[in-house]
Amino acid sequence: MKIIKNPPRADWKAICKRPVLKAENLQQLVNQIFEEVKVGGDKAIAKYTQLFDKTSISTLAVSRAEIEKAERELPNELKEAIQLAASTITKFHKAQMPQKIEVETAPGVICWQEARPIDKVGIYIPGGTAPLFSTVLMLAIPAKIAKCNEIVLCTPPDKNGNINPAILYVANYVGVSKVYKVGGIQAIAGMTFGTEYIPAVYKIFGPGNQYVTAAKQRAAQLGVAIDMPAGPSELLVLADKTSNPAFVASDLLSQAEHGADSQVICVVKSENLISEIEEEVNGQLEQLPRKAIAEKAMENSKFVMLEEEQDCIDFINEYAPEHFIICCKNEEFYTKNIRNAGSVFIGNYTPESAGDYASGTNHTLPTNGYAKSFSGVNMDAFLKKVTFQKISKSGIQNIGSAIEIMAEAEGLQAHKNAVTLRLNSLKND
Amino acid sequence: MKIIKNPPRADWKAICKRPVLKAENLQQLVNQIFEEVKVGGDKAIAKYTQLFDKTSISTLAVSRAEIEKAERELPNELKEAIQLAASTITKFHKAQMPQKIEVETAPGVICWQEARPIDKVGIYIPGGTAPLFSTVLMLAIPAKIAKCNEIVLCTPPDKNGNINPAILYVANYVGVSKVYKVGGIQAIAGMTFGTEYIPAVYKIFGPGNQYVTAAKQRAAQLGVAIDMPAGPSELLVLADKTSNPAFVASDLLSQAEHGADSQVICVVKSENLISEIEEEVNGQLEQLPRKAIAEKAMENSKFVMLEEEQDCIDFINEYAPEHFIICCKNEEFYTKNIRNAGSVFIGNYTPESAGDYASGTNHTLPTNGYAKSFSGVNMDAFLKKVTFQKISKSGIQNIGSAIEIMAEAEGLQAHKNAVTLRLNSLKND
Repeated sequence: MKIIKNPPRADWKAICKRPVLKAENLQQLVNQIFEEVKVGGDKAIAKYTQLFDKTSISTLAVSRAEIEKAERELPNELKEAIQLAASTITKFHKAQMPQKIEVETAPGVICWQEARPIDKVGIYIPGGTAPLFSTVLMLAIPAKIAKCNEIVLCTPPDKNGNINPAILYVANYVGVSKVYKVGGIQAIAGMTFGTEYIPAVYKIFGPGNQYVTAAKQRAAQLGVAIDMPAGPSELLVLADKTSNPAFVASDLLSQAEHGADSQVICVVKSENLISEIEEEVNGQLEQLPRKAIAEKAMENSKFVMLEEEQDCIDFINEYAPEHFIICCKNEEFYTKNIRNAGSVFIGNYTPESAGDYASGTNHTLPTNGYAKSFSGVNMDAFLKKVTFQKISKSGIQNIGSAIEIMAEAEGLQAHKNAVTLRLNSLKND
Repeated sequence: MKIIKNPPRADWKAICKRPVLKAENLQQLVNQIFEEVKVGGDKAIAKYTQLFDKTSISTLAVSRAEIEKAERELPNELKEAIQLAASTITKFHKAQMPQKIEVETAPGVICWQEARPIDKVGIYIPGGTAPLFSTVLMLAIPAKIAKCNEIVLCTPPDKNGNINPAILYVANYVGVSKVYKVGGIQAIAGMTFGTEYIPAVYKIFGPGNQYVTAAKQRAAQLGVAIDMPAGPSELLVLADKTSNPAFVASDLLSQAEHGADSQVICVVKSENLISEIEEEVNGQLEQLPRKAIAEKAMENSKFVMLEEEQDCIDFINEYAPEHFIICCKNEEFYTKNIRNAGSVFIGNYTPESAGDYASGTNHTLPTNGYAKSFSGVNMDAFLKKVTFQKISKSGIQNIGSAIEIMAEAEGLQAHKNAVTLRLNSLKND
């Protein structure tokens, strides 16, 4: 890790910069697969599943028998862990359901706002080495609470045409309507256009590699909403002498093992903490099966020493971390003044991995500084808020003249006329 | 208007299709101006203001003297109308401010969600024939309520280098921090990169022509959030025999005068209503100063006759109108079952223009079917919801083992280790 002591504010922007990704230009490949799936449907999907996933499957839809097999196979202790996580996630997200808001904005003018579910949502879960069944929990549970009618899940099959049993178990446990064995660009294209098997959806959620990211961008151009812009995972820990260096090191490493392009930042207020944490990082790193990945990520990572509390929080707000761990005495100062962060973890017994799995908060969070303008996935992501207004005769008499004057001033005579006609009709009332 | 009677469901998708826009490829022009503004700052902006707005201005920032002049010049009755609108908009948006949500998801595991303002927001207001001061109300009022630190407004100057006084009056009245005389692509580029005068912002709001739309898309690629995808304005009216044909016609026309590419749909349950409404449309059209525009828009527009209530609401949800007016006896059925709409207007005395100006709801709404997945602008658009969690020693003892098991199953050993270290430290407690 690099050590940066008391950097002047002019340098902060450069320090906060995330490692630049060499984004290959995938546009042409994405456009081609989208065009083929649009025209050829499931046949085109089968072609690309054969090409990329090296398997040919007779049917895209996961069968009841496959789900039952997954349920039998999955160890009981994993099922119980999943059930505990599902319960905390459900509690926290249910509490977020927006209430109807109603205001009489002027006498006789009633306005209200009500949430409505997004009818059809798609969830993409990557395959590969780590079966991210926890992401199924994080996306499908709020979709169910929101009462989305159709919840579609796509995830790539392995070489034998199978899906990881933990993914199937979770999908079934939380009530996903349909699971399809399809991954990558062709999965996103399928949910964009719809095929014989896969329904077209209005919004696509979920993580993925650069192919999936490029495909989601294409889907967005074609009118399908997406959850948020993608980027490598990241963590910022603020530590002082009340923190436990071993715990801090374990949190830094748990972020670093996500990928070689992950980034961690450790903000400290005093110098001697740096060597203690570094020593722990080096020791723990040796034990990790994903040591090579974590080591590479640690090279991108930084200790930033800032002596003043106000400088610390200003720097953290400038960085806008996806995950922000506060391990310091004056934690209230930071919880009060943090403005830009995805999710915040407070105290020595709140590791970031708690939020990844089982505290109840969502782990789909804005990276790459997007915490300045985006929320993490929460109930709002599965809902639209629709406004309603109902104006009585006396209500339009109260605000009608203001509308006429403003419409006229904007040069919109027909807007004015819609009010004038109504006001005139009431003159004889 | 075209008349479509009892269309089968298979035809609905085609009927709901919006007129296809011939989108010129503006990418090259946008990229060039962005590059120049990034490097050249205000000098590049001045060059393009000269080129597109045919004026050279000495300073981009609107002065105190200009604002005072606008205040003196604006007619009192317009000021009072604006103040009434500001009061209803403020009331409705203040009521939407999200509250802190806190849940103990498991014993010792406290999770909460709090809203934080987006620190820096930019508002774009087009120039041209209609000075859209009402949009300043709709975007700046919620930004102020959200406590966004910096609210920047860009709007193009006229040939004499001036801004419409109503725009300046509203901006000052609602508390916009900074107003700049700059329009088009160069304005969006300025708010994306920041210049000597214009601050870089985290999110850009506001309507605009195809140049502004293309520029906002470029800004989004560069990491600046935008309010929503743009499209021509649209309205769907549901009318039965309890509706007033003259009122319905006036609403259809008030939408149609926005632009030749606007679209209106009138869903009716019985045939004889069609001719009554059409007659009113033709009569009122003659009186309109923007007749040519409205006439063109009406050519794209449709009467859709559907006899069954359920078919009506299903069709409307498939269309997903930006504005939806309900003028029928059974209005509760529609307010209850509408799932996809931007803003809903209920009854004979609730014209769509009320929502454009003064009912209190926001007029920045999803078009082109985006109401299936997007909300209109509301308080959420100016906020991020940040999650927090604090876990006690006993809390991590309660959920720690579930985290360990799940992290292990996902192959993320360092995630597990962050918990194991903490649990081990507590064994001797």
